[in-house]
Amino acid sequence: MKIYVVGIGAGSADGMTFEARNVLEKADVIVGYTVYAELVKKLFPEKEYFVSAMKQEAERCRKAVEMAADGRNVAVVCSGDAGVYGMASLVYEIAASYENVEVSVVAGVSAMLSGGALVGAPLGHDFAVISLSDLLTPWEKIEKRLECASAADFAICLYNPSSKKRHDYLMRACDIMLKHKNADTVCAVAKNIGRDGEEYAIMSLAELRNYSADMFTTVFIGNSMTKNIGGKMVTPRGYKNV
Amino acid sequence: MKIYVVGIGAGSADGMTFEARNVLEKADVIVGYTVYAELVKKLFPEKEYFVSAMKQEAERCRKAVEMAADGRNVAVVCSGDAGVYGMASLVYEIAASYENVEVSVVAGVSAMLSGGALVGAPLGHDFAVISLSDLLTPWEKIEKRLECASAADFAICLYNPSSKKRHDYLMRACDIMLKHKNADTVCAVAKNIGRDGEEYAIMSLAELRNYSADMFTTVFIGNSMTKNIGGKMVTPRGYKNV
Repeated sequence: MKIYVVGIGAGSADGMTFEARNVLEKADVIVGYTVYAELVKKLFPEKEYFVSAMKQEAERCRKAVEMAADGRNVAVVCSGDAGVYGMASLVYEIAASYENVEVSVVAGVSAMLSGGALVGAPLGHDFAVISLSDLLTPWEKIEKRLECASAADFAICLYNPSSKKRHDYLMRACDIMLKHKNADTVCAVAKNIGRDGEEYAIMSLAELRNYSADMFTTVFIGNSMTKNIGGKMVTPRGYKNV
Repeated sequence: MKIYVVGIGAGSADGMTFEARNVLEKADVIVGYTVYAELVKKLFPEKEYFVSAMKQEAERCRKAVEMAADGRNVAVVCSGDAGVYGMASLVYEIAASYENVEVSVVAGVSAMLSGGALVGAPLGHDFAVISLSDLLTPWEKIEKRLECASAADFAICLYNPSSKKRHDYLMRACDIMLKHKNADTVCAVAKNIGRDGEEYAIMSLAELRNYSADMFTTVFIGNSMTKNIGGKMVTPRGYKNV
């Protein structure tokens, strides 16, 4: 049996691909974290759902794979893309123990892209994507990546910039980036992308250091060429100009 | 007037978001590189199109902005996402000289995500995206980014790995990555994503070094944790395991 891991985009029904909606339409049961499952329920209220809270990803994916092994048509939903910090790799790892379960990933618009469109064009050239969550990654590894990405003048997109337990992580990340990037580097934050309360702001890296991000915020840090054009963050697509 | 810069995804109509299709439906004129405009024409054969060849991006975008300034509803189409190596930043830069033109970006599924879904889940953890095209970027800058991204154990996605004039660039990039990544690092290539002739392959970094990529290929290089699970490339979402 096939199990689908489906990226549903930022949250609005409009941000989903046709492929994602088709796969969800055919699913017997839809599995996901409560918040994302609720978004899908608005489109498909009649479906069967298996939902669970945050930090129960492994258990949830295992249950999903078991249901697929039992012959049901299962779709695991993730916000944004299914692969980027999503459930796709976890489902692959778990499904490896089940001979009759085949995994199929349906890509979606990740927050770096939907948030990017909201704030301008921050990722118009080479970039690095780094999560500040140290739940599954040693903080030293995160620091090294921030350091190297800044030293090579990448534009940077940060996922999970903050949480209750990690209120100063964005500040610590900015301090590392400030070793290589100018304090006036153009940055942006995008919040509640595609949902109620959607907002964004453009600011300098120095200002970002003191910004209070929450877990629904995606953060963009420019490269040395990034500009503020009419209140939008724009990274040119090259170093030889128009 | 508003000008829309629209990411249409990998190429199949199914890979487009509802938002992208809605915006194209309302456009008076659709502007783009010949190949991508042709893909859109299949969906909207009755529209007016302004198409031009590769390397004429600046001229094409200028024409698009002028048409918007003249009061027409213009959509500039890009394959994948509009922001990632797309036309969005170029349109922002050009539109800055026109007081009555407002830019709006519509995100799409970039090749790192659609190609990623095809080969497995290669970008399940922090990653860097690097274009090997040195048309607008000094090669030294590209080398530095390859070096730093490898040193920090990022998964890496390469755009534009090759062209007629740059047939050995992927080999040179692999040699740089091999300074920090093991020769048996799990890698993948995705070709003609979402179009006729779609295919992918999983291979080691040593094998990738001798792979002949073309300009329709997207390349993925794993981090130290990336695995081959049943012929798919899977990067776990953290370093503390399931």
